[in-house]
Amino acid sequence: MEKNIDSKLAAVKKHILEMGGFVEKALMQACQSMEMRDISGFGKVHEIEKRINEAQMQVDNECLNILATQGPVAKDLRFIMSILKINTDLERMGDLSVNIAYSGKDFLNYNLSIGIKELNRMSVLVRDMVGQSLDSFVKADQELAQKILLQDDEVDYIRDIIDGELIKHMKSHPQDVEPCMHLLSISRNLERLGDHATNIAEDVIFAFSGRDIRHGGRFG
Amino acid sequence: MEKNIDSKLAAVKKHILEMGGFVEKALMQACQSMEMRDISGFGKVHEIEKRINEAQMQVDNECLNILATQGPVAKDLRFIMSILKINTDLERMGDLSVNIAYSGKDFLNYNLSIGIKELNRMSVLVRDMVGQSLDSFVKADQELAQKILLQDDEVDYIRDIIDGELIKHMKSHPQDVEPCMHLLSISRNLERLGDHATNIAEDVIFAFSGRDIRHGGRFG
Repeated sequence: MEKNIDSKLAAVKKHILEMGGFVEKALMQACQSMEMRDISGFGKVHEIEKRINEAQMQVDNECLNILATQGPVAKDLRFIMSILKINTDLERMGDLSVNIAYSGKDFLNYNLSIGIKELNRMSVLVRDMVGQSLDSFVKADQELAQKILLQDDEVDYIRDIIDGELIKHMKSHPQDVEPCMHLLSISRNLERLGDHATNIAEDVIFAFSGRDIRHGGRFG
Repeated sequence: MEKNIDSKLAAVKKHILEMGGFVEKALMQACQSMEMRDISGFGKVHEIEKRINEAQMQVDNECLNILATQGPVAKDLRFIMSILKINTDLERMGDLSVNIAYSGKDFLNYNLSIGIKELNRMSVLVRDMVGQSLDSFVKADQELAQKILLQDDEVDYIRDIIDGELIKHMKSHPQDVEPCMHLLSISRNLERLGDHATNIAEDVIFAFSGRDIRHGGRFG
């Protein structure tokens, strides 16, 4: 016998939040291994990413099942649509954490401190955004979701500072081009993680208000 | 009175293909402006991207409407799920084309030919993948979709060659760090466009076969 739609929606919500927890863990693991210069720590990111990928397929299947058997409408349908989008974002965020682990591992072959302070600041901010985007979803908190949209501008600002520092350093110390490239790659991946947290915030606003704020709608 | 589901599915298919056409156009415009060193051409990419964004919201709304009013099941439901995913991919591909336009514009302040030949080769390949991913969707051609998955490895291979050339050049000519960074950014964005074409190919296989080949399923 079919379970009712509310219990199915609660189950898929639980699963996507577990998946979000894995993403937070993967990102924290990648960033902390970098900060602690702990090469072995990067391997754990790959393990966590596997669980993210499994969760993605499970969540997609659950949504498909709810759509096929429950015929959700109005806010339930918007909720499912948002879960499908958040699911895609979280999976990419797992990939990006793995990218950070790869670049971090390569970077640790070198000893360079330039840009690291700003990179750590960026990493704390992005991890905060990721955590808050999931919180805003759990609590249906549109105000918190709006706050994340502003934090994304700060991430871009720090990225520009890092770019400037590293480009300047590469020009005066061309022997350091490789480690600088690894740091630039980490900074780009963090930036993209911030973008995905922003997507999730936009999905939360859509799910709980019905307002589509993509493409400038946020100012509308 | 509600139109029947087939005509609604045909309409949303038509709209997502138009959107795909805009993406091809945006990418071609960005790459050709780069190849022709035509700064004014980059502006057109932004204009086309606006139409991509509008199309994305329209397609999402049409899918939501079909899900709410038609209760699609089985292959129709898989088709809608795939359209939703392809829609997200195409919108990102528009963003990436805009990124290429920005980096291309910055690059044209310099006169550097290193890596350009490979970059043009990569751009032709990625444009081919994007066109073929849309073709595979139109024709429900799973064999073509499979082919795209292999082309993505070639894109990664060319990216590695470009990385190697540019890193070597930056080390011996540190005064060229900035233009090299712009080329690396273009190469990264092309690579990501290839990834999205690959996602679309995976969605096509799911839509028309029900097989989920993500995360290694392609080898299963």
